Amino acid sequence: MVQQTVKLASGYEMPIVGFGLWKVPKETAADTVYNAIKAGYRLFDGAYDYQNEKEAGEGIRRAISEGLVKRNDIFVTTKLWNNYHSREHAVPMAKAQNEAWGLGYIDLFLIHFPCALEYVDPEKKRYPGWWVEDGKTVKPAKVPIRETWSAMEALVDTGIARSIGVSNFQAQLLYDVLTYAKHPLSSLQIEHHPYLVQPSLIRMAQEHDIVVTAYSSFGPQSFLELPPAFRERAGEVALLFDAEPIKRAADKHKVTPAQVLLRWATQRNISVIPKSNNPARLAQNLDVLSFDLYQEEIDAISALDRGLRFNDPGHYLPEHPLFIFA
Amino acid sequence: MVQQTVKLASGYEMPIVGFGLWKVPKETAADTVYNAIKAGYRLFDGAYDYQNEKEAGEGIRRAISEGLVKRNDIFVTTKLWNNYHSREHAVPMAKAQNEAWGLGYIDLFLIHFPCALEYVDPEKKRYPGWWVEDGKTVKPAKVPIRETWSAMEALVDTGIARSIGVSNFQAQLLYDVLTYAKHPLSSLQIEHHPYLVQPSLIRMAQEHDIVVTAYSSFGPQSFLELPPAFRERAGEVALLFDAEPIKRAADKHKVTPAQVLLRWATQRNISVIPKSNNPARLAQNLDVLSFDLYQEEIDAISALDRGLRFNDPGHYLPEHPLFIFA
Repeated sequence: MVQQTVKLASGYEMPIVGFGLWKVPKETAADTVYNAIKAGYRLFDGAYDYQNEKEAGEGIRRAISEGLVKRNDIFVTTKLWNNYHSREHAVPMAKAQNEAWGLGYIDLFLIHFPCALEYVDPEKKRYPGWWVEDGKTVKPAKVPIRETWSAMEALVDTGIARSIGVSNFQAQLLYDVLTYAKHPLSSLQIEHHPYLVQPSLIRMAQEHDIVVTAYSSFGPQSFLELPPAFRERAGEVALLFDAEPIKRAADKHKVTPAQVLLRWATQRNISVIPKSNNPARLAQNLDVLSFDLYQEEIDAISALDRGLRFNDPGHYLPEHPLFIFA
Repeated sequence: MVQQTVKLASGYEMPIVGFGLWKVPKETAADTVYNAIKAGYRLFDGAYDYQNEKEAGEGIRRAISEGLVKRNDIFVTTKLWNNYHSREHAVPMAKAQNEAWGLGYIDLFLIHFPCALEYVDPEKKRYPGWWVEDGKTVKPAKVPIRETWSAMEALVDTGIARSIGVSNFQAQLLYDVLTYAKHPLSSLQIEHHPYLVQPSLIRMAQEHDIVVTAYSSFGPQSFLELPPAFRERAGEVALLFDAEPIKRAADKHKVTPAQVLLRWATQRNISVIPKSNNPARLAQNLDVLSFDLYQEEIDAISALDRGLRFNDPGHYLPEHPLFIFA
């Protein structure tokens, strides 16, 4: 199986297909990751907010200790959560995350969202999510993105991270970071599927040597297992697996609709990080480089675009919405 | 005629209806402004890039010298162009603009676009627009927005500007400016019409006490008189004056479609700055506070939204697009 990589602006190579750890239960994460390595995965995309960094790290270390892979074969991405944007909190938090993984360093460290929230002591509340204690109030903090970016650069300088980047950023904020970045902004991770194509944002990023990683490649599918506020929009549209141009390309190339969706991204040099707890689909999702879509197929799939964003805190935080995509 | 104002976060009052100076020819600008004051206009929205600040200032000064108005009755908005974002260039440029107006101070000074371009000496090229000399190359400059914002704050501290704000900013960059602003960000000027409603951005701004000003209230109409690259998108859609819910509301309230479009904005506390070189329409455009639309009419007009932006340098700078709205 081809293990294609993309070169980051930092100089390091990143696999173009990885395994996403969002919603992988902590209890099974170590085994899931270990089995994913056996199936051929080398990139693991985590985050503090996913609550399974320690367990994912255990799975990787087991594979290393058994000689299946070396540390250098593995690429770990993780993300800094909103409550730790200040320099004072970002660096210690990143160090603690790096220790949780237990792999010596993080390959790619991202700012998870471009919005700072009030600090919450992890000793008191381990995973604050978006809210303070009452479970509904969202409290922004006045931390400029430049301060957080500078903390990310400190992670590179101290060897905690090899490459750094951001997630969920719009073009204007990317342009602004590019005016002061001392280390390259290697990657931008965004929601990207045929219902939310964002061609201008992708073009802007790629023209600036920023590798785009797509999350929620299957669109609404990824959100149906979430609590009501998060899945509301997803329940209102047809699944992408049932969309005509996707089914047609799947039939034509004798692959699954999921594989078509992943290839639609990777063929445009966009990295993907699907998740599956099912071994057969896990293998399928990795096998998305052995066929090529025709340009007309790519275009027909892109034409499904309706600017429909599912991961939007302007929508799923109704009492205190954060309009970071407006 | 009601001369309604909105209170800015700076403490100053701004008229909710003003006169936009974009595309007002320099040759007639002084008379146009003078006549607009006679017709009742008190807010004038200019910019360095509009190339008529000096002449607009002359028109205002004539009205003042004739006793028609006092300086304090008039509200002047102007904007800093992209080539002068660095602190070193922003402050002298703003001083020169203030002298061109010749009114002692500027009421509201905005950053025109969130993108810095390479400095061009105004002695060599007075109005550089988007391009360097060859008329097609766009050269971004590495000036953080924070530096430009800090220059705007210096304008307040030195009495050149009473209030400051921005134009064409997305929510993420607004949130970021709000983390470091020492003086209030009083106003956000954006393209806003029924084909580009941006309800989340407007809600975000208004919740942060930022007064929204709409430009191009008539949608495609404003762009048809521009060169081909700028008017391309505008030529592809029906004029808003012909849209059913707008015509219906105009008939119902015995006003013009233009008045309906302006009232659709002002009734939601959004300031408007229409332009007209025709005296009758000039008076009509100001008379948009004497009737109220029904909520169902507002909703029907808002439902025309198709996310269609006309003033997009990701589109009209094809060789070197700036994707500031991605």
